[in-house]
Amino acid sequence: MSLPPKPDFELLFNPKSIALIGASNNIGKWGAIVFLNIKLGGYAGRLHPVNPKEESIFGHKSYARITQIPEPIDLAVIAIPASLTMGAIRDCVEKGVRMAIVITSDFSETGEEGARLEKEMVETARTGGLRLVGPNTMGIFSAASSLTALMPPVRPRKGKVSLVSQSGNIGTQMMAWGEKFGVGFDKYVSSGNEGDLRAEDYVAFFGAVPDTKVVLAYIEGLDDGREFWETSQKITRQKPIIAFKGGKTRAGARAAKSHSGAMAGSREIYESAFRQAGIIWASTTEEMLEWAAAFSYLPLPRGNRVGILTRGGGWGVITADACNEIGLEVPPLEEKLIRALDPVMPVYWSKGNPVDMAASISMDAYLHSLEALIAWEKVDAVISLSGDAGPLSGILSEVKKKAEGIIPAESLEKFAAHIAASRTRVYQRICELIDQYQKPIFAVGRNLVKGKDGPAADFSLPQFRSPERAAQAAGKLYQYFHYLKSVGAV
Amino acid sequence: MSLPPKPDFELLFNPKSIALIGASNNIGKWGAIVFLNIKLGGYAGRLHPVNPKEESIFGHKSYARITQIPEPIDLAVIAIPASLTMGAIRDCVEKGVRMAIVITSDFSETGEEGARLEKEMVETARTGGLRLVGPNTMGIFSAASSLTALMPPVRPRKGKVSLVSQSGNIGTQMMAWGEKFGVGFDKYVSSGNEGDLRAEDYVAFFGAVPDTKVVLAYIEGLDDGREFWETSQKITRQKPIIAFKGGKTRAGARAAKSHSGAMAGSREIYESAFRQAGIIWASTTEEMLEWAAAFSYLPLPRGNRVGILTRGGGWGVITADACNEIGLEVPPLEEKLIRALDPVMPVYWSKGNPVDMAASISMDAYLHSLEALIAWEKVDAVISLSGDAGPLSGILSEVKKKAEGIIPAESLEKFAAHIAASRTRVYQRICELIDQYQKPIFAVGRNLVKGKDGPAADFSLPQFRSPERAAQAAGKLYQYFHYLKSVGAV
Repeated sequence: MSLPPKPDFELLFNPKSIALIGASNNIGKWGAIVFLNIKLGGYAGRLHPVNPKEESIFGHKSYARITQIPEPIDLAVIAIPASLTMGAIRDCVEKGVRMAIVITSDFSETGEEGARLEKEMVETARTGGLRLVGPNTMGIFSAASSLTALMPPVRPRKGKVSLVSQSGNIGTQMMAWGEKFGVGFDKYVSSGNEGDLRAEDYVAFFGAVPDTKVVLAYIEGLDDGREFWETSQKITRQKPIIAFKGGKTRAGARAAKSHSGAMAGSREIYESAFRQAGIIWASTTEEMLEWAAAFSYLPLPRGNRVGILTRGGGWGVITADACNEIGLEVPPLEEKLIRALDPVMPVYWSKGNPVDMAASISMDAYLHSLEALIAWEKVDAVISLSGDAGPLSGILSEVKKKAEGIIPAESLEKFAAHIAASRTRVYQRICELIDQYQKPIFAVGRNLVKGKDGPAADFSLPQFRSPERAAQAAGKLYQYFHYLKSVGAV
Repeated sequence: MSLPPKPDFELLFNPKSIALIGASNNIGKWGAIVFLNIKLGGYAGRLHPVNPKEESIFGHKSYARITQIPEPIDLAVIAIPASLTMGAIRDCVEKGVRMAIVITSDFSETGEEGARLEKEMVETARTGGLRLVGPNTMGIFSAASSLTALMPPVRPRKGKVSLVSQSGNIGTQMMAWGEKFGVGFDKYVSSGNEGDLRAEDYVAFFGAVPDTKVVLAYIEGLDDGREFWETSQKITRQKPIIAFKGGKTRAGARAAKSHSGAMAGSREIYESAFRQAGIIWASTTEEMLEWAAAFSYLPLPRGNRVGILTRGGGWGVITADACNEIGLEVPPLEEKLIRALDPVMPVYWSKGNPVDMAASISMDAYLHSLEALIAWEKVDAVISLSGDAGPLSGILSEVKKKAEGIIPAESLEKFAAHIAASRTRVYQRICELIDQYQKPIFAVGRNLVKGKDGPAADFSLPQFRSPERAAQAAGKLYQYFHYLKSVGAV
C-alpha cells in the first residue's frame, strides 16, 4: 500500500464550508443535534445539510447528495448508518473533499464485520485523497473557527489547551468542565476508532501549533506505541503533555476492548514509557483539568520550596501536609521574613511557614505578606489560601438579600464597593506578583474575580478548589521543570 | 482537683437565650460579625448584646455586663480580648451561666503566658459550674435551633451529619461545602484549643444523639488518645465516624503546633488506631464530605461487586478501573442479563459490565437497564453515570436563550416539559430502586433534580462529581459494612 495523502488539519479545524451528511429535522436523531450544535456554537463558515428526503433542515436548503452542493466543501461530517457510509465516502471523493469526520458507529468496535467495513471505508477514502477522523467519533472543536462539530452540546471556553481523546464522552466532559476549572481550549478531537488518523497524528499536530500551549491526551490503547512515544518525546521539550490512561485494570481493560476496540496494554509499560517521554501522568479526570489550568497560566517553579499563606491555621496544616507528602519542602521562616511581617500581623501570629494570619481580616496585610513570601529567595512558589475579601463578602450578599435594615443603606453601599474593590485588587496584585517575580502563585478559592469579568481580562489565574489540589498542581509543575532540566531544555 | 461539672450540651445546642459578650457595631470587629451571623442565621431564641460602651448593637439594647440582663442566660458567647476574659468568666459564673463559647484567641496557642491564662480561666469556670467551648474557637452550629454562632458567615444545609473540628476554618469550610456535596449538618463544634471540653467529649455526645447519623472529626492532636479510641470504638458499631488527621508530615505537624498548640503525633499510630476503632480515614477534605453524603443517604453494600451503567464507553472504562484499583469487583454480565437488556439496547451494544448504552438517548432504556442491574443478585451496588436527560437538556437551554426560531415555540415547550419530566422521573426512580432493593446506587452527575426542589423533598440522593469519586465512596461504604460484620454488628 502506498503512503496515504498527508492530512490537511487546516481544513479540519478551520473549514470555510462544511457538509453535514445525514442532517435531520428530527430532534431525536444525531443528525439534528450535530446540526444544531454547529449552528448554536457560532460557526461562521457555511454549513450545508445533506439529506435526500428533506427539502430543508431547520430552514437551511438541503441537498440530496454532497456532489450537488454548488461550492467546494472543505470538511464533510458524516452521521448516517454504517451501511450507507461507503456511498457517502465515494461521494466525498467525487466532490474532492479531503477531510471528513465519521461520527457513525457500528464499525470495528462491534466485531469482525464492522472491522472489515471500516478497513474498506478507510482504503476507499485514502485512495481518493480523503483522510478520516473516526469512525465512532463524537467530533471536533476548534476555537479559531468557533466550530463545535460535536454530538454533545458543549461550548468550550476558548484558550490554550488542545486535547485528543480516545473516548468522546471523556473528551467532551473535559471541555464542559473547562469553565469550572478555568481551562480554555484551542482544539479538540475525539479520535474514535482511529480507523485512519490516530492519536499520535493529532498530538504531533498540536505539538506544532503555536496557539496550543498544553497538550492533553486520553488514551485507551495505541497501535504503534513507539511512534507515540517518539512524537511525544520531541514535544515535551517544548510544551507539556498531560496524559490519562483508560483501561489500567482487568475490568477497565475489558471495558476498553468493547468500547474503542483498543487493546489496553499493561499499565506498567504505559506508565514507565510515558514518564520517560516526559509526559505528565494524571490519575483522575479532574487532575487533568486542574493541571491543564496550572500549566496554561503559571510560570514553572524552579525548585521544590513552597511558601504558604493562610488566614486559617487548619488550612495551613493541611497544605503543609499535602506539600510534604509529594516531596515539596515548606522551609521554616527566616528571621528577616519574621521581621518584615511582624508589623502587619496580629501580636500572637505563628512566625512560621505556613504564614498564618490568624483570622486577620486586613487586605493590606494579606497583600503585604504575599509579596514578602513570593519575593523571598528561599521559596520557588507560593500557595495562597483565601485571598478573597474574607467573611465580610459572605455577609454582604445576605444583608442585601434580607434587607432587614440591619445596616443603613449608605454604609451598605460603601461596604459593597469596598469588597468589590478588594477582590479586584487581590486578583490584579496576584497576577502582577507572578509576572514580576516569575514564580507561580497557586490561589485556592472560588471567589476571586474571574479574568473575563474583571479588569484583568487578558490574564486568567487558575484557582484551585482545595489546598490539596493546589499542592498537587505545584508538584506537577515542579516535576515538569525538573524534567526539562534533566534533558537540558531549560 | 475534683471532677468538673457535667457539660449540658442541650444548653449549648438549643439555648433559649444567648448573651454575646463583646458585641459591637463596628463591622470590622468579630463582635459585630458574630452578632450578625446569629441574627441572619435565623436563631429564634433571644440574643442579648453585652458591651459597656454602647447603648444598643444594631438596634438591640446592649447591657454593660451579662449580670444586668433581666432573664436567665443559657449560653454565653465571648468575643473580647484575652486580657478581659477572666472578668467575663466571673460575670458568667455570677449570672449562673453553665455553657460558654470562648471565641477569643491569644491563649495556649501563643505560648506560656497564654497557656497560664487559659488554665486559670478554665479552673475559674469549672469551679463556678461553667463549661467552655474553646478558647480560640470559631463557634458552633445547631440545626434544631437554626443557631449559627460562628465567625464565618456560613448557613449550613440542615441534615444528619455532625462535625467536630480542631480547626475552625476547616470546619466552617466543610459546612459551606455542604450545599455543593449534598451534605446536611445536624451539629458542629469548632473545638479550638480544647482548654476545657475536648474532641472526645463532642464525639461521645454526637454518638448518643439520634438526629446524628454520621460523625465527622478533623483532628490535629489528642491529649488522651485512648479515651478518644474507646469512645469511637463504641460509636462505630452504631454509626460511622469519618476522621481526617491534620499534621501528618513534618511541615504539617510544625504548623499544627503553632495553630492549635496540638502535638500532632505519628501518622502511623493515628492511622492504625483509627482503623482498629472502625473509624473511616479520609485523605483529603473533599473526601470527608463526599463520604458523609454517601453514608447519610445510601444503604451499605453487602458485598464488593459493582454494576456500572453508562452512556459513554470511556466513562465505563474509567469507572471499572477505579473500582478494581480499590478492590471492588466488576463481574462480567451473565447470559440472563444480556437477554434482559438486548431488547432495549442498540444492536451493537457491548454486552458487558460496564453496561454501555452507546450514546442511546432513550430514558426508558436507561431506567430499564438500571433496574435490571440493581436487581441482579451478582452485584451489591450500582454506579450510574449520566442518568440525566442527556444531551438534549443541554441544547434546550441554549435554544431558549438564543431564540433564533430554530425550533417552533410549541415544540420547544413540549421538549422542555419532556426533559423536566424525565429528570424528575430518573431521580424518583433511582430513589425507589435503592429503597426497593436495599442496595446503594451511586449517581454521577450534577444535573439531576435536587431533593429540595423536586417532588422527592424528603429524600436526598448524593451525586458524585466524577466516576472515580463514586467508586471511592462505594469502596468506603463496603469497607464499613465489612467492619460491622467483623465485629458482629450486622
